[in-house]
Amino acid sequence: MEHTVGVVLYPGFESLDVFGPVEAFGCIPGLFRVVTVAEEPGPVASGQGPRTLADHGFADCPPLDVLVVPGGIGTPQQIENPTLLAWLTRRAAETPLVASVCTGSWLLARAGLLDGRRATSNKMFFANAREYGRNVTWIPRARWVEDGRFLTSSGVSAGTDMALHVVAKLAGADVAERVANAMEWTWVRDAREDPFADVWGAA
Amino acid sequence: MEHTVGVVLYPGFESLDVFGPVEAFGCIPGLFRVVTVAEEPGPVASGQGPRTLADHGFADCPPLDVLVVPGGIGTPQQIENPTLLAWLTRRAAETPLVASVCTGSWLLARAGLLDGRRATSNKMFFANAREYGRNVTWIPRARWVEDGRFLTSSGVSAGTDMALHVVAKLAGADVAERVANAMEWTWVRDAREDPFADVWGAA
Repeated sequence: MEHTVGVVLYPGFESLDVFGPVEAFGCIPGLFRVVTVAEEPGPVASGQGPRTLADHGFADCPPLDVLVVPGGIGTPQQIENPTLLAWLTRRAAETPLVASVCTGSWLLARAGLLDGRRATSNKMFFANAREYGRNVTWIPRARWVEDGRFLTSSGVSAGTDMALHVVAKLAGADVAERVANAMEWTWVRDAREDPFADVWGAA
Repeated sequence: MEHTVGVVLYPGFESLDVFGPVEAFGCIPGLFRVVTVAEEPGPVASGQGPRTLADHGFADCPPLDVLVVPGGIGTPQQIENPTLLAWLTRRAAETPLVASVCTGSWLLARAGLLDGRRATSNKMFFANAREYGRNVTWIPRARWVEDGRFLTSSGVSAGTDMALHVVAKLAGADVAERVANAMEWTWVRDAREDPFADVWGAA
């Protein structure tokens, strides 16, 4: 098992923000180890209802190669959660790749992790992203944005396109291609162009 | 809350087979109630690692409007599980819409529910589907197949395209469109044509 991916859970996380990347990283057994982490270990309810167990609490989370922060209806509550924000800041400092899906980038920005960087967020509530962080260049048309160790994606499904890009970075383009085909996933490969930017008038 | 959707969990279920449809049905709050059901209530590990709680066991599952059966690396084990197969048979008799994702159609077929019907399955292991059921017309190019109360989809992501079709049936085409846009999901709308049929040589 080469790489460990940690996916953050919090009450009201968006199901596909979490499980699209979980699928991309975990589709082919043995490539990545996927763990879930929340403030405390145990069940966390998504915005859609079903509860998933956090394998680890913040206190006992193992070292990660990739950290994934989802968005969801619960994001606004976490924006004011100092425990989560402090953990993200500490964890991001020691994790090679930090990625957010959808409104998860609001949390990275609020924690100061995107200051001076380029980033994106989901297109439905794009204007809200601009409230967070200092000197963040928010890119309204992007499907996802990679700036150094930080990757931020547009809404929900865009996180899976970004995750496949991370699979390609860490395991090779041919492996990522095989994963996308096994998932029967129509991979939006062009990071610069989110097909939904115009739908939601983000640009 | 108009409709209740029950999603089956079993050890080794494929994450996106479950959570793509969960997202499609649950994305807009108040439209559908989504519950998870397994042989016993409690945690069930997906093929990708994370454990999700079954809200209900087979014994205490509430009436459902839609039943969703996922596939995954755990499907071959369930093919020989008489408890699951008997429950599927009983439940299908009293549920208006029964849908499978990926290798989930092997389970419906094994339970005899697809006898004499048209159906599809995932494209990577399409030949295996033909082992199950009697006089099932397996359609190799389909993204999904609707035959009466039964819907069967191709692999993984195809289940979400099918779920959006069910959203359209039950809540209207405009609502399904809004859901797909909120999910930033590139919806494959043509049920007859799976873009991955040729990739895996299923046709």
